[in-house]
Amino acid sequence: MKILVLNSGSSSLKYQVIDMSNEKTVAEGICERIGTADSEMTYKAHGNKTKVEHGMPTHKEAIDLVLKTLQGENGVIKSIEEIDAVGHRVLHGAETFKDSVLITEEVLAKLEENVPLGPLHMPANIMGIKNCMELMPGKPNVAVFDTAFHQTLPNYAYMYPLPYQDYEELRVRKYGFHGTSHKYVSQRATEILGTKESKVIICHLGNGSSISAVKNGECIDTSMGLTPLEGLMMGTRCGNIDPAAVLYVMEKRNMSINEMDTYMNKKSGILGIYEKNSDFRNVRDDYLNGDERATLTFNMLTYRIKQYIGSYAATLGGVDAICFTGGIGENSGVTREKICEGLEFLGVEIDKEFNSRIETERLDGELLISKGKVKVYRINTNEELVIAEDTYRITKN
Amino acid sequence: MKILVLNSGSSSLKYQVIDMSNEKTVAEGICERIGTADSEMTYKAHGNKTKVEHGMPTHKEAIDLVLKTLQGENGVIKSIEEIDAVGHRVLHGAETFKDSVLITEEVLAKLEENVPLGPLHMPANIMGIKNCMELMPGKPNVAVFDTAFHQTLPNYAYMYPLPYQDYEELRVRKYGFHGTSHKYVSQRATEILGTKESKVIICHLGNGSSISAVKNGECIDTSMGLTPLEGLMMGTRCGNIDPAAVLYVMEKRNMSINEMDTYMNKKSGILGIYEKNSDFRNVRDDYLNGDERATLTFNMLTYRIKQYIGSYAATLGGVDAICFTGGIGENSGVTREKICEGLEFLGVEIDKEFNSRIETERLDGELLISKGKVKVYRINTNEELVIAEDTYRITKN
Repeated sequence: MKILVLNSGSSSLKYQVIDMSNEKTVAEGICERIGTADSEMTYKAHGNKTKVEHGMPTHKEAIDLVLKTLQGENGVIKSIEEIDAVGHRVLHGAETFKDSVLITEEVLAKLEENVPLGPLHMPANIMGIKNCMELMPGKPNVAVFDTAFHQTLPNYAYMYPLPYQDYEELRVRKYGFHGTSHKYVSQRATEILGTKESKVIICHLGNGSSISAVKNGECIDTSMGLTPLEGLMMGTRCGNIDPAAVLYVMEKRNMSINEMDTYMNKKSGILGIYEKNSDFRNVRDDYLNGDERATLTFNMLTYRIKQYIGSYAATLGGVDAICFTGGIGENSGVTREKICEGLEFLGVEIDKEFNSRIETERLDGELLISKGKVKVYRINTNEELVIAEDTYRITKN
Repeated sequence: MKILVLNSGSSSLKYQVIDMSNEKTVAEGICERIGTADSEMTYKAHGNKTKVEHGMPTHKEAIDLVLKTLQGENGVIKSIEEIDAVGHRVLHGAETFKDSVLITEEVLAKLEENVPLGPLHMPANIMGIKNCMELMPGKPNVAVFDTAFHQTLPNYAYMYPLPYQDYEELRVRKYGFHGTSHKYVSQRATEILGTKESKVIICHLGNGSSISAVKNGECIDTSMGLTPLEGLMMGTRCGNIDPAAVLYVMEKRNMSINEMDTYMNKKSGILGIYEKNSDFRNVRDDYLNGDERATLTFNMLTYRIKQYIGSYAATLGGVDAICFTGGIGENSGVTREKICEGLEFLGVEIDKEFNSRIETERLDGELLISKGKVKVYRINTNEELVIAEDTYRITKN
């Protein structure tokens, strides 16, 4: 049983083939700059990594190239028949999809209805699905949504205090994203804790960052909102600011709605404050060397995460475990330590010595980094595995 | 030593005369609908309350009428000479004013520079000052800022993760408001606690609402931002939402910047969700009667306050006292109880029986309403007294 996992971006296509008999990834890679003259594909299998420059005018040629390569000389399948189903990462399920779903014509029509909620991602997601239906007729396709895990939020958490008509007419509410990651890591946490009866906070910290409150396995609040802009300070996204500041900056700088959207999504966050670039590893290094602007950036970013942890402890009525995942969450010990500083009143006590050794000694896996009442874990996320598992679950019969 | 306290709004003028020998208010009232045909003044002194319809084309005539009434038959002074100084509530001190200040021509010029940061309030505030200078030449005037108490925030708390140039060029940052109330209530709390070495959270809940984290007497974070829109859900203000939702609604409803500003400031919050009106007392009554929309409104409002308390506990590294003040904070026991529900992990335990009696028995004053480790107080705020005290302190020599 092999599952092909696809994540179609506007000009990229990430893929993995996962063997469900042992949940291992047997091949993976990415097609980049699709639609441009220098489009190329990276492919990794059997321990070898190759790069192929190849014309990919659209996602269709990209998927075709992936399928041919998977059957080629460094391939992992003899024929397409060995792929049992395709799992697609889809950004926005809105309120229509509370779980992953087998794609039918009816489902496709409903996905089209969600394009206005994710105008940058949804067209590419839908295109990827349609291309697979064409290239592999009869093969089951499953949509796995970034939003689905957060559909358990209570109404008082997902509603915005805007006029009610915005919810009824425009579907404006909090949806939340990174759902597959929050689902995977919270499931791992409850397994490690040995009980589903638990209050867990998941900090997914990467270029995009979000945080979730998960009670007894169900998500009850999350930091991203109608779009992935809300919440934490991110690589290039501002996260929460005074809503009136949006209008103030827009007016003073004479920007259009689209320009302001780009400003908050692409020019803000770490990039906006640190200014050199949006790479948190550089911020951390400069912070450790005492650079003033890097210190401000580091302090802003970690402070906001600390506040969310306090906020979600209140949401949960206490906390049993805090999990760090994502590129920053998994790899930066100094960041985890700074975030947890001052949370002793919650019962959080970081094992500083061990926490700092993870990076220097390149320790891997699921690690307990606390000594206090509240368990603090560093857990590697695996969004592709969640997509493959859901696809397997829905298509196995 | 009598201080005249003035709060000049765009079409209103609130006033109080406070006798600093005993800190009692000897006269108070409000001029409303200034500049319209049905402008009127309310006046309260010696236990009598009167209403006077009187032409007030501008604030100047309003202040003149106040001064004449104070010296009239139900007056509290024989001549203007008995007023030693005038304290003015001023919305925005920006980064220029970290404390109250004696008004000079230079100060007035700096206040003018802050008009863009408070275009609705600052012109009225400045007009009130200028009118007093004209009507009472030689009388000292003091500006007391809504923002000053929050000027102790660390930079990582007041900076927004927007491009740094927005701070440098446009002065975009968190300022915070309701400063006189947060100052007064936190001072009362530290006096009651008997130590300034304390971690106190102030919930000022009224038609406008904000919450502050005060450590050892200094404010270290607050929920309002560049403008009084940020933070909690309020009477007609939305508070925090996805910044991208601002643009989304604006685009879908084809609104201008000004229209969207009005939408979020005047049509949202309680009014937006409850829809009948923006009066929280009605929401609470309907909630207690099981009305669905009132329940959603009540839950949204209290949930957001609870989350801020958790967030500020993380900011403070724990909490010694939580204080409720403002119209809702002082008067609604069921709201205080709901907010504190689930905060037992912090050491918060409401004395439910006593808390509920405050309203039914109309108990007044500064009341301890908790039984747990964390002290929870209901404290009447007194913003006018803070203005009078600052005015007295600055002008007494």
